[in-house]
Formats: sequence, structure tokens, C-alpha cells
Amino acid sequence: MSEKQIDLNSDVGESFGNYKLGTDEQLIPLISSANIACGFHAGDPTVMKNSIKIAKENGVALGAHPGFPDLLGFGRRNMDVSLEEIMDYVIYQIGALQAFAAAQGMTLQHVKPHGALYNMAVKNMKIWEAIAEAVAAVDPRLVLFVMAGPWQGDLEAIGAKHKIRLAFEFFGDRAYNPDGSLVSRKLPGAVIHDHEQVAEKVLKLVKESKVICIDGTEIELRAETICVHGDNPAALELVSHIRKSLREAGVEIAPPATFL
Amino acid sequence: MSEKQIDLNSDVGESFGNYKLGTDEQLIPLISSANIACGFHAGDPTVMKNSIKIAKENGVALGAHPGFPDLLGFGRRNMDVSLEEIMDYVIYQIGALQAFAAAQGMTLQHVKPHGALYNMAVKNMKIWEAIAEAVAAVDPRLVLFVMAGPWQGDLEAIGAKHKIRLAFEFFGDRAYNPDGSLVSRKLPGAVIHDHEQVAEKVLKLVKESKVICIDGTEIELRAETICVHGDNPAALELVSHIRKSLREAGVEIAPPATFL
Amino acid sequence: MSEKQIDLNSDVGESFGNYKLGTDEQLIPLISSANIACGFHAGDPTVMKNSIKIAKENGVALGAHPGFPDLLGFGRRNMDVSLEEIMDYVIYQIGALQAFAAAQGMTLQHVKPHGALYNMAVKNMKIWEAIAEAVAAVDPRLVLFVMAGPWQGDLEAIGAKHKIRLAFEFFGDRAYNPDGSLVSRKLPGAVIHDHEQVAEKVLKLVKESKVICIDGTEIELRAETICVHGDNPAALELVSHIRKSLREAGVEIAPPATFL
Amino acid sequence: MSEKQIDLNSDVGESFGNYKLGTDEQLIPLISSANIACGFHAGDPTVMKNSIKIAKENGVALGAHPGFPDLLGFGRRNMDVSLEEIMDYVIYQIGALQAFAAAQGMTLQHVKPHGALYNMAVKNMKIWEAIAEAVAAVDPRLVLFVMAGPWQGDLEAIGAKHKIRLAFEFFGDRAYNPDGSLVSRKLPGAVIHDHEQVAEKVLKLVKESKVICIDGTEIELRAETICVHGDNPAALELVSHIRKSLREAGVEIAPPATFL
Repeated sequence: MSEKQIDLNSDVGESFGNYKLGTDEQLIPLISSANIACGFHAGDPTVMKNSIKIAKENGVALGAHPGFPDLLGFGRRNMDVSLEEIMDYVIYQIGALQAFAAAQGMTLQHVKPHGALYNMAVKNMKIWEAIAEAVAAVDPRLVLFVMAGPWQGDLEAIGAKHKIRLAFEFFGDRAYNPDGSLVSRKLPGAVIHDHEQVAEKVLKLVKESKVICIDGTEIELRAETICVHGDNPAALELVSHIRKSLREAGVEIAPPATFL
Repeated sequence: MSEKQIDLNSDVGESFGNYKLGTDEQLIPLISSANIACGFHAGDPTVMKNSIKIAKENGVALGAHPGFPDLLGFGRRNMDVSLEEIMDYVIYQIGALQAFAAAQGMTLQHVKPHGALYNMAVKNMKIWEAIAEAVAAVDPRLVLFVMAGPWQGDLEAIGAKHKIRLAFEFFGDRAYNPDGSLVSRKLPGAVIHDHEQVAEKVLKLVKESKVICIDGTEIELRAETICVHGDNPAALELVSHIRKSLREAGVEIAPPATFL
Repeated sequence: MSEKQIDLNSDVGESFGNYKLGTDEQLIPLISSANIACGFHAGDPTVMKNSIKIAKENGVALGAHPGFPDLLGFGRRNMDVSLEEIMDYVIYQIGALQAFAAAQGMTLQHVKPHGALYNMAVKNMKIWEAIAEAVAAVDPRLVLFVMAGPWQGDLEAIGAKHKIRLAFEFFGDRAYNPDGSLVSRKLPGAVIHDHEQVAEKVLKLVKESKVICIDGTEIELRAETICVHGDNPAALELVSHIRKSLREAGVEIAPPATFL
Repeated sequence: MSEKQIDLNSDVGESFGNYKLGTDEQLIPLISSANIACGFHAGDPTVMKNSIKIAKENGVALGAHPGFPDLLGFGRRNMDVSLEEIMDYVIYQIGALQAFAAAQGMTLQHVKPHGALYNMAVKNMKIWEAIAEAVAAVDPRLVLFVMAGPWQGDLEAIGAKHKIRLAFEFFGDRAYNPDGSLVSRKLPGAVIHDHEQVAEKVLKLVKESKVICIDGTEIELRAETICVHGDNPAALELVSHIRKSLREAGVEIAPPATFL
């Protein structure tokens, strides 16, 4: 048994009808948790079924990736929806994916909100709470993926209140502020492009629960899952590089439900 | 215990966003099985949640009412979709509703396809089979509502193959052909408007499993559920009249899962 | 010829498919400018055609009422779209309605943004400018309906820059702040329910270009069009009452393109 | 001046939001008429604007490519819509594209129905008539692209009745039946993959108005436009090959409005 475990999660199943997006067949074998789009911001019923099939074949844990009802904007545009609407949208999308999982003899491991819904939650704890309440209402065994950061205590309180497990998420290719939040994409240095640097950041996080911030200071940060991307061949290479680096360091890549 | 039981089912939850449709609050207390729209041809997440709430309060069994992805056409326009697409659309919609049921501590009783999907199935047994396979894959405890008629044996074979229960549906306000099929709406006399006549037809069906056809002949027909409507005050009155007539005859109105 | 003219505008054509909304057949004869939904937040092609038909029969000027692509939220939810997207959405929707007008031998008089798009523009002059630029690009003869208020000078500069006419809009059933902006709906007294009071406010605005604000102060405000509603019988009565009051005072109700 | 002219048309502007489809930047310079998706089966407002921009820069004529409201099925699934709905959908989509053309100082040349709408029209002359009536209502200067074949006389009667010009379309990569209709894709030999053969077929059609059918017989067929595709590099090569072959034969490639 490994000393340490970490999850690699990625967004998949983002094709829609005649439109193909992503590299699911190459990416899914490299990750341990698949965030599957549920038809609101991306994905369609047939794509959802096929994404589950690929994940199942590769022993990858299944997660719902609910987003805003904005296919045109790919769920990336903030929408001024109510907390009730957020809960209802999350419940709907989890359920739709659960049915495809059930039809293949599987269950979902987790829920990770997508795009603008995730970003809005990071800035408004009431949205995280609405999502947590929705997840707990559908199935309290589901793990909710949330962003690691200075709000960790608040999120843990929400998880405890709704009796669901949380997996804190780390972004290896993003620079961090000394308070544990992400450096805004509008600022220089926000995104790290060097594969070696990303792998080192991930390893430090996994082994020591520490991040070196954009100003050079070192902070503590807890995370159980690393967000990775498969948008293009370079992204896939980065994932492979992270995997190799983790394995060489004796870290096991595994879905969080197995070690939380 | 009653000598006989029969189910009254109706389509509910057909509002969408700012658009209100139907008389759910008046209708649901009068029926025993609610066919709840699932967001493709009608309904939205918040409407689905609220429909379940009303049904739960009234002890009415819950069913998914999946339709074509055609909100503009209210799911009433035939679409040349593949059997795989039909299965995927049905699975998606059942799942979405299941999650709202789970969030209120409920489970679904049944599935009844909507509009053009139902009508296309009636003309093409392969579509019934695709729907049955989808239902069985998600949850074999679900009852599939199908149209009573001359194809009863074929449908029973499909139900047996996929190990799901069927509830055959009768239309009290429609004239029947001697072969047990519905008289086309394009023909005179296809729709029966007299409440007394409808109630009598329903009672004969329930008590004797017999229908007097448009040509006066009497045929045998088995059905466990009667389709009723709540589009307007007159429709609600008809449902009340049918209920009264059934109860006076000692027939219990109950969801089919309780007596199938 | 009347001493004074004023326009009465209202949102119409908000039905969608099987969903009926509004009282268009009663309302349209009472107004002079119809804001017709264009299929994004409400309306569909057949509804658009029919709305134009009713307006044409009643000699009512036609306007496009573009909104956000959010049918589920009826275009009432703020969306974080770019200025380019706003321009593109406005151009698309104007064009769609223009074609139906052309098919009936008509042209459009105006454009009034709907719901959240209108509200966001009121808070962000760049959005008004994007809308003005879009309107001018499609057809500089179109009048843009904008909200009367303290920003009048800024809006006039935008209109001049893009060489389009503006019609400033007044809300007779809303209380005004002393700076000429609307009192927030969250505050008491924001909405005026008394028909007589509304008619008096409208008349004062039309005859004197003055408003008595919520704090009793009187301010100057210029407007060429009054927003009215037809959501229910009481709303229709209010419109009739406003019409009667205006006519008795010798004010002509006419579309703004005739007097701007 | 060339002895002969022919148009090359292709479907473009089929991306949607975050989803990219097609090779518009490579394809558009190779054709003379662009069929631009209008947001129902594919395309979105921003994509429409950009497609017009590319076409304008390349001197390519603009056409609306209206389809069914079925983004999920890419407009390729037959839908049982009414003739009135077809007219309304066509008018809406033409108008939306016209506005983007106007905003760039352009006008549309033509309309070509997409996918299932085109295929259903080929089998039902009433649908062609509905489309023709819609086109004529919006702008009788628009050319309607229709399929060449044994129904040519019927189509010409429709064009004459509604006073619009038709451009008959030929499919160089499809085998023809002796009656002038296309060989079904379900039959062997229906699609011609050899670039040289396709170019020869096109040249024979253009120079002699003749086609050698699948059974070897030679028939007369009139066409003013050739349908080409840009789905992939091989498709683009085929278009280049057809262009070269036509030019070497002294045929001018030009939009049909210039020579009809």
C-alpha cells in the first residue's frame, strides 16, 4: 500500500450531438475520477452513456459535472440564478447521470460543479451550501469536489452539516496567492505552462500539503484531487508527466472515495 | 378490500419557467398515478420538484413522462430518432425525475412515454421494446404504461423478456375499433364528450374488461389504468364524475404497483 | 393636431409553442407600439408572425424585443455575456422579426431590449452603446427605446454617435428617486397600484415633463413612451384608464416614429 | 467571358458556441456560394457574423441555410412539422441572417434548406412550395436552391408561381438513377469516392447537361450549382480538384445570381 494517495480528475463527455469535443478516449485512462457533463452546458444523453462506458472500462470513478443551462456559453457565463434554481439544476443533472450509471451497473462517486457555477460558488459560500444540500438530498454517499483554499473551514462545516464528504481540489497549473486562493487569470503568471514545474507543484502538494505561492511564500494547503485537462495533445502529455512523477514518488493515483 | 381496482393516470408538471400549464393542484388529488414531464417536451427542474411535492402530499404514485427533445412542439411531433436515441432519452429523463423523488424520500412507480413518442411506439413495436429495455436498465421495479389494444400479446412478450411489469392503459373518452385500437381522431365520433357515456365506458371496462366499439360490437380489453385529463374545468369535472361512478360501483382507485 | 403626443408601448408575443402567455388580442388595440419577443427569452416563429398580424390590423407600430438566450428564465436573469455577444444577439433577433414584418409588407419601428438585458444596460452604459451600435448596423431608421433618467445626456450622446433616434421610456406605475432613477422594487412604495395615481403621473409627465418623486420633490424628466402591461384584466383596465385620461387631456397616443 | 458558368455551394458556419465544426477558412475561398447555418440546426449569432465576414472577404455569395429546430440532431432527423411551421422557421432564419448581412453592408443571394428539411422537400412538393412561398414573402430577389431531378418541371412551376428564381443543384459525388434522382445511400455505389470520377461527372454536367447514371444510361439534367463539402482535408482536396478541372475546361465558377 502506498504512503499517499491522490486523485486526478478531469472534465469529460463534453461532446454534443454532431459536435465532438475533447480527447476522452485518450484522457480517461490517465485519470481516476471523470467529471461527466450532464446535458446542460455540454453533453447529451448518448454522450453521457458513452462516457460512462469508457470510464467503466478503465476503472475510473464516475462523477456528475452539473452546469448552468447555457449550451451556447458552455456554462462559462455567470447567471443570476436563485439558490433554489441551483439546487434544482444540480439535482436534475445528477439524476440524469445516475440513471446511465445504473443502466451499466455502476454508481456515481462524486459531483463537481462546472465552469461559472463552480466559480460563483467559490465567491459565495451560500452557493456551495446549496450544492451540498442538493447532493446530500439525492445521495449522501456522493463526494462533493470543492476548491481548496482559505475557505476550507467553512466548506468543512457545510460538509459536516449536510453529512457529505468533500474532496478538496488543487490546480497544479495555476499560481496561488499567499491566502491560498488562485491568482486571477487576468494577472501575469497566473497559468503555469512548464510541465516540469506543474509536476513539482503537484508533488509538493501531495507529499507535504504545501504550495509555493506566486510571491515565493510557502503555505499549507490540503487537497485530495488534482484537476487536469485533456483539451489537446500537450495537455495529455502533461497529465502523463504528472502521473509518472507521482508514481515515481510512490504516490498512488486513486479516486477519493477509496481513501477519504 | 375492493373486488376491483383501477388506476387513474394523468399528465402533470407541464409548466416551464414563466409558462404555466395545467391544473396540477386541482387534478393531482383526483388521480392515483401522476405522469410528470421531465424537461424535454415540457417541465423544468423546479416544476418537477413541485409536482412531486403535490403528488406526495396527495398519496399519488409518481411516474416519469419522457418525451422528445422538442419543447417548441410540446413533444407532439414525430421525430425520426434512432432506437438508441430513444433509449438514451428515456434513461436520461427517468433519472432526472428519480433524483427529485429521492430528494423527497420517494421512488418512482412508473414510466409513461409522452405524445409523439407514445404514438410512434403504438405503431412500431420496436420502439416499445427500446423503451422497455431502457426502463428495465434503470430500474426493473418500474411499471411501464402501454396502450391496451390488439397488440397486448406482443407487449406482454416484451415485458416478460425485460422482466418489467406493464400497466395497460384505456382511454375512456375515445371510441374504439373492433380490433381494440383507437378510432382515429380524424374520424367523426372519435372523441366522446358526454361525461355520462365516458363514465359508463370506464365502468364497463373495469368491471367486465369489455368495450362497446364504435360499430356497436362488444370486445374484450384488459386495462389497469385509465388516462384522464385536467386541461380545463370541464376536464376536471369529468375526472370527478369518473371517480364517483367507480366508487359507487365499489371499485377502488389505486396505483397499479399496488395490485399488479 | 394635438398639442402633445405620447406613445404607449407594451411587451407582446410572449407565448411559446403550446404555452400561451399574455392578453395580446385585448392589449394590442390599446397601445401604439408593440415590443414583440423574438424567440430567445420568449416567442417563437409562429407567435412572431401572429403578433405582427394583430399589430398590423390595429395600426400599432412594430418593435423587436430582444432578450437573453434564456427561455427557462424568461430573459429575466442577468447573464455575464460579452458586449460582442450582446450585439450579435440583438442583431439576430431584430433580423428574425424584420423578416416576418417584410412578409406582411411591414417594417419595424423600434427596438426595446427585454428584461435582464434592459436592466443591465441601465446599469452599464457600455451595454446601451453595444445595443445602439447593433441597431444602427442593421437599420439606422430604427428607434431605440431607452429608460428615461439621469443618464439622459449620456444616452443622447450614444444616439448621436450611432445616428439613431431614441425614445425615452417612462414607467407610470413605478415610484421615482429624486435623481430620476426608479425606486428599487425591494423598497416599499416602489410600485404604484392605484390606477388614478398612475394616470395622473403619466399625464403630468406628458403635459409638463415632470415627475413627483417618492420624497415629494418634483423633477424634470423627458419621455416619449410609456411602458404599460397586459398581464391580467386589471392591467388591461389600467391601460384603458391611462388612454382615457390622456385623450381627455387632448394628448394623442401615437408611435414615436411619427413625432420624434 | 466564359462560355459556361457554374456555382459551387457548400454548407458553412456550422460551429456553435464552444463547438468548432468544419473548415470554413479553407473552404470558403474555394466556393462561390456559402450556405450559412442560421442557429436552428447549427450556427449561432457570432458564428453567423463571422461566416459572413469570411465570405465577404472572399467575394463569395451569401445564402441562408435554414434547418429544423433540432441542434441535438443537427437538423438531420425528419420532424413531422406543419407546412405553416416550415414557412415560419424559414422566414425566421432568413431574417436572422439578413440582419448580419446588412450589418456588414451585404445582402443575401440565396436560400438552401438544410438536411432533413431539404430531404423531406425532395419527397414532398408541398414542402418545396412552402419554402418557396416563405422565400418570396421575405425577399423575391432571393434564389432558392433546389435539387435537380425528375421533378424539375414541378419546381419550375412553383418558382414561376411565387416569382422567384431557382438554382438546380447537382451532387457530383453521388450516383444517379436513370430518372434523375439520387441513388439511395443505403445502396452500394451511391457515393463516389474517386476525385477524378467526381470531377469528370461535374464537367459533363456543366458542359453537356448530362449525367451517366448508375446503370450506364445517359440522361439530361440541368443544374446551376454543385454541392461540395469541406468536412476534412480530403474533401477540400476534392473541391480544389473540381475547381481546377472546371477552369481548365474554360468554365467560370460564379454565384448563380450572376448568370441566372
